[in-house]
Amino acid sequence: MTARYDVIGIGNAIVDVLAHSDDEFLAAHGLAKGAMTLIDADTAKVLYDAMAPAIECSGGSAANTIAGLASLGAASAFIGKVRDDQLGAIFRHDIRALGVTFETLLATGGAATARCLIFVTADAQRTMQTYLGACVELGPGDIDRDLIAAAKVTYLEGYLWDPPGAKEAFILAATVARQAGRMVALSLSDPFCVDRHRSDFCDLLNDHVDVLFANEEEIKSLYRVDTFDAAMQRVRGHCRIAALTRSKKGSVIISGDEVHVVDAVPIKPVVDTTGAGDAYAAGFLYGITHDFDLVLAARIGGIVAAEVISHFGARAEVPLDALVRREMGSA
Amino acid sequence: MTARYDVIGIGNAIVDVLAHSDDEFLAAHGLAKGAMTLIDADTAKVLYDAMAPAIECSGGSAANTIAGLASLGAASAFIGKVRDDQLGAIFRHDIRALGVTFETLLATGGAATARCLIFVTADAQRTMQTYLGACVELGPGDIDRDLIAAAKVTYLEGYLWDPPGAKEAFILAATVARQAGRMVALSLSDPFCVDRHRSDFCDLLNDHVDVLFANEEEIKSLYRVDTFDAAMQRVRGHCRIAALTRSKKGSVIISGDEVHVVDAVPIKPVVDTTGAGDAYAAGFLYGITHDFDLVLAARIGGIVAAEVISHFGARAEVPLDALVRREMGSA
Repeated sequence: MTARYDVIGIGNAIVDVLAHSDDEFLAAHGLAKGAMTLIDADTAKVLYDAMAPAIECSGGSAANTIAGLASLGAASAFIGKVRDDQLGAIFRHDIRALGVTFETLLATGGAATARCLIFVTADAQRTMQTYLGACVELGPGDIDRDLIAAAKVTYLEGYLWDPPGAKEAFILAATVARQAGRMVALSLSDPFCVDRHRSDFCDLLNDHVDVLFANEEEIKSLYRVDTFDAAMQRVRGHCRIAALTRSKKGSVIISGDEVHVVDAVPIKPVVDTTGAGDAYAAGFLYGITHDFDLVLAARIGGIVAAEVISHFGARAEVPLDALVRREMGSA
Repeated sequence: MTARYDVIGIGNAIVDVLAHSDDEFLAAHGLAKGAMTLIDADTAKVLYDAMAPAIECSGGSAANTIAGLASLGAASAFIGKVRDDQLGAIFRHDIRALGVTFETLLATGGAATARCLIFVTADAQRTMQTYLGACVELGPGDIDRDLIAAAKVTYLEGYLWDPPGAKEAFILAATVARQAGRMVALSLSDPFCVDRHRSDFCDLLNDHVDVLFANEEEIKSLYRVDTFDAAMQRVRGHCRIAALTRSKKGSVIISGDEVHVVDAVPIKPVVDTTGAGDAYAAGFLYGITHDFDLVLAARIGGIVAAEVISHFGARAEVPLDALVRREMGSA
């Protein structure tokens, strides 16, 4: 069957709240620099009260990737749960305004739409404190089987393993995709997330995943090894394609016997690394769903990531289709 | 009595929703480029549905000025009405996080917190469509007389003339300030706003206002004259101090027999002019409440305006006290 969509993403539907911060603030509040930490509503209130003036923009890891794909020109869809509140309206608006199909039913009771308090330090590092809110309402009932079957790739974020119902939705979606002969892609999301769910993620790689996205810390955490090279040897054969990102060192792509080392796009100044991995995944998935080879896909990933880290916020500020055409033409 | 505050601002409490746009979009929706237009809830919904992905940040004309003053190190307070909703929480957080006293009671019913849909075109011009929402609930009961009497300057935005109850609050505040021997400052806000309330604004200048802020279009509209010079002749003697801004041409300050022409701070690229006038007012009011002469006050206004138009959004991205020290040192 012809695919109506290039990629469907399933993830936590989150509005980001971004502010400048410094190491003293992180230390005073005991925040793990560079990591994503789950917080409850009370902690979210305390931290927000202490936070500097902020800006709000739609976020969420898989949602950022889908937004990037849409901006690149891919046909894409998203499944994720927001409430019928003002932040939920912002999330829906921003993803639909890019042409993304987003029809997940709103939660009409329970917790508010999720938010992620993001503290950006002068070194462009981001420290994320996430209140999952309405995301915990996502369950298997939200998985539209026809939609999944109609997409070349179903893309899942590892963060979905945190809310319990979402995990079931995740496995259902992966199963439906595989049965329809489609590909399943997974991002490991965060080294601490890997730490929380290591054996589940290893099982997933064995049973469900065709394309794996991980950065250096995440893949080392998954296999509990100390070097990138050791992790890379372990990942070979564990899934069809692994795209391992290494910040300034670029990315390494592994697929069967193929191994490619692709340089990063130089960028200065780096302003805010929020969403770098999500952006890379967008570019890479665009490439492999449009019959580019793995090296070209990795290069597009690098171009999109470079755009996103050059400014505050996780989503692109310029239309990515034109940007990539320009960058590829000049390379 | 010693003043506890340098400036207290009274204005519409608004969350800005900013997106890139183009002239075709403005024309298709019949939007008056560069102006602030009031819209109802239904129009706000239609326009938001058609709008590109956006970011949210606290706005409001006088509120932006007060935020700038706080960042410059001035002791400041704000009076304005938001609802007890998520956008209201964002507005409160952002202004309080700067150390601004903001104690206006939240509306617990009625319309939602105000928002301003801002369409920024590639020429850095901003076109604003404002849904006033909870701002219409502001009334004389919200004016804390002790707070007004405790501030060197009470700063009022002309936009307050749009919601009926706010107008009464405005006059009460100006009266209380004058009785306490304090200064009253007014921004004319927008040429269309001047057009709506011309004779009221002229009366205000005669009876209540010590410091007037207006840009070239606004002051020409107030006096229905065709040239800046003609407007400038009319404003002399109409209030103690007039600070007339002229974009790239800088500003002209008039006070009794004194007339100063102060150049703008050159800036490129100009990204988004939203909040330029509010920022200038912040710098100027900082100057006159800290015993700087009028020329220095105008220069600080120019420095703050240059920061704000160099990026997306109406409020400063960097601490203004340090910025101004650096710029003044190097001048």
